Amino acid sequence: MKPHGPIPPGFTADDDGMLMIGSDRAEALVDAAGDTPLFVYDSALLTARVAEWRAAMPDNVQLHFAMKANPYAPLLAYMARLVDGFDVASGGELKAALASGMAADHISFAGPGKRDRELEAAIAAGATLNLESAGEAERALSIGARLGVTPKLAVRVNPDFDLKGSGMKMGGGAKPFGVDADEVPALVRRLIDAGADWQGFHIFAGSQALDAAAIAETQAQTVALAARLADEAGAVPPLVNLGGGMGVPYFPGDKAVDAAAVGAALAETLDARDRALEDSRFAMELGRWLVAEAGVYLTRVVDRKVSHGETFLVTDGGLHHQLAASGNFGTVIRRNYPIAVANRFGGEAVETVSVVGCLCTPLDRLGDQVALPRADVGDLIAVFQAGAYGASASPATFLGQGPAREMLV
Amino acid sequence: MKPHGPIPPGFTADDDGMLMIGSDRAEALVDAAGDTPLFVYDSALLTARVAEWRAAMPDNVQLHFAMKANPYAPLLAYMARLVDGFDVASGGELKAALASGMAADHISFAGPGKRDRELEAAIAAGATLNLESAGEAERALSIGARLGVTPKLAVRVNPDFDLKGSGMKMGGGAKPFGVDADEVPALVRRLIDAGADWQGFHIFAGSQALDAAAIAETQAQTVALAARLADEAGAVPPLVNLGGGMGVPYFPGDKAVDAAAVGAALAETLDARDRALEDSRFAMELGRWLVAEAGVYLTRVVDRKVSHGETFLVTDGGLHHQLAASGNFGTVIRRNYPIAVANRFGGEAVETVSVVGCLCTPLDRLGDQVALPRADVGDLIAVFQAGAYGASASPATFLGQGPAREMLV
Repeated sequence: MKPHGPIPPGFTADDDGMLMIGSDRAEALVDAAGDTPLFVYDSALLTARVAEWRAAMPDNVQLHFAMKANPYAPLLAYMARLVDGFDVASGGELKAALASGMAADHISFAGPGKRDRELEAAIAAGATLNLESAGEAERALSIGARLGVTPKLAVRVNPDFDLKGSGMKMGGGAKPFGVDADEVPALVRRLIDAGADWQGFHIFAGSQALDAAAIAETQAQTVALAARLADEAGAVPPLVNLGGGMGVPYFPGDKAVDAAAVGAALAETLDARDRALEDSRFAMELGRWLVAEAGVYLTRVVDRKVSHGETFLVTDGGLHHQLAASGNFGTVIRRNYPIAVANRFGGEAVETVSVVGCLCTPLDRLGDQVALPRADVGDLIAVFQAGAYGASASPATFLGQGPAREMLV
Repeated sequence: MKPHGPIPPGFTADDDGMLMIGSDRAEALVDAAGDTPLFVYDSALLTARVAEWRAAMPDNVQLHFAMKANPYAPLLAYMARLVDGFDVASGGELKAALASGMAADHISFAGPGKRDRELEAAIAAGATLNLESAGEAERALSIGARLGVTPKLAVRVNPDFDLKGSGMKMGGGAKPFGVDADEVPALVRRLIDAGADWQGFHIFAGSQALDAAAIAETQAQTVALAARLADEAGAVPPLVNLGGGMGVPYFPGDKAVDAAAVGAALAETLDARDRALEDSRFAMELGRWLVAEAGVYLTRVVDRKVSHGETFLVTDGGLHHQLAASGNFGTVIRRNYPIAVANRFGGEAVETVSVVGCLCTPLDRLGDQVALPRADVGDLIAVFQAGAYGASASPATFLGQGPAREMLV
């Protein structure tokens, strides 16, 4: 038997043992959607999560949603009313963000390979570009001049430090992202001298960390770096985007980030900040932390079989919707995401099974030798922490399967 | 500097140093397609590959294409005229296979999680189902009875051995695929007694092996296993699908499979086969080996930047089209696929660069510290071995990027 990650709080069963998502039975949601596999996103959990963040963080910090975590249109429209801004990573995401109702001047666009047509779309719409290089800066300036629009430009900084314990390191050494810190002041001067509307800094040192102290330390370094760069540039950054970093517990032993501790430390950091940032606003950019726990992936058992003494539950889902849960995206060693039998939720584990997907590849495993209540053909399996980097970050067309259904409740 | 995989044979440059794909300049193909990123599949290379296989293999072995490797419709239609059958892995692939012009009775359908509607579609069309379990067999029989159609059923066997050195082990121990060998004879009797049209065995021990001796040994084991099972079942399998196994050289040091050696060994194995298989036909099921080398992924350099002394070429492509090449699909340690500057093809390597995609994640790397000719913004990068498990096996919607263009030339 191998453990699975912790089932996130906020999920209960009804008297029949059926998983409830919001006020709905999981099976009823599948009926409403028409079929499995199905991603369900619980809007009440999204609201609660944003409220938790706002309660924890100082008032002078804005909340941005990194929509790459979940671009499902109804969820985006819902989040647009909850958060202060969207961060996008492509022209496609920019279009979706604008369609969600988020105002263009609350959208910023980072990404190392922006094409000219993407720069043009952002400048024309009035979104902020987080510039990734001096070359990109020159392209943006000339496109702005051609369009007769003053471009809103921030500088993405490649910091000299990374976020300790983060699943994804985005700083500390040679990176394709942002401008090396020592080249930033000159670029800021260049932007201001060229008449651009300089928006400040975007500094993203890592993501998917669970240790509040590490996040707090990185935020302190980030604020100090922003102050030094502002001082060297001789200009006050209107906004300092502190990046993200707050992760979610996917795996056995993982503990949720202590958001209150992050917020308390950030308040101290900002209270003590250098005068160079006195008039700056601040933002945190979160994706996964905001939406992962609100999502559940539901898939039905199509076959139950025993091979050489091991029991397999074969489902109609798989890595084509849940690439990360299968262990094939950004993790070296496969571990089990939180998983349950949705129609025996909270029931006693009575057997060890492997839950696999319907794809004809040994990579397609959603649960490896997990202890679960008995499940048979027709039963529903739930994989949790499915609200981020699921549907949109998986190869939906692989083996001709096509995308999962999605719904916001 | 880190090495990259070997550039496959069959690609040359014109006098300007532009990569030729078939008789076309890479840049002209991009113009014809409208933009990068672009997958180009060379039909002449597909034809040559099938011819190589037929020259190497004994006459009594059929060639099946495992279309999961590349389901691009024009390529499928082309392959339908070259090979003897298609193997599909879902109802979606079945539909695409039928649309390609391949006759239904030359299509077989394997996959551990076939839903009832997929079984029904296959039975109604007259395709062969490779049964993955006794439970699936019963479902297929009852659907056949309900439709009034005699189902064409083969048994997928989980062999007790695997393919040595294979990238993907599909046998040897507890697996979600197929029926454990010792349960197969009883299942064959059950199918025959129930009046099904029993088609034989499907035995797939592994894939992506480069060692001809290992493949030959596995094929010998496979034929021996089929003979034993046929003998125990007291029935002659009309077809024994020997699986695949022949891989392609992706990485530094990899050498192409010696197809002639595989064929010579298989001829010996079949000549010496047990009388239980005297009247059987045989097939090999190949995906990657048939189509990988015919494909080139073309992506344009959008930015060139230096961070902490390292040079990055940022392209408009990435892991959303080339998940495996980025090292995030089925490999533990990232190594470089064959990669080149398409418009300086064959030119002298003068610098070490990392080629990254446009996605805002450190996972998005197509070439890590590779030695290449100088490349600047606007130049074309080619990633080779892109004809299999590329476009359809990557998360195309990730970060709002959308799919690459594809073309068959």
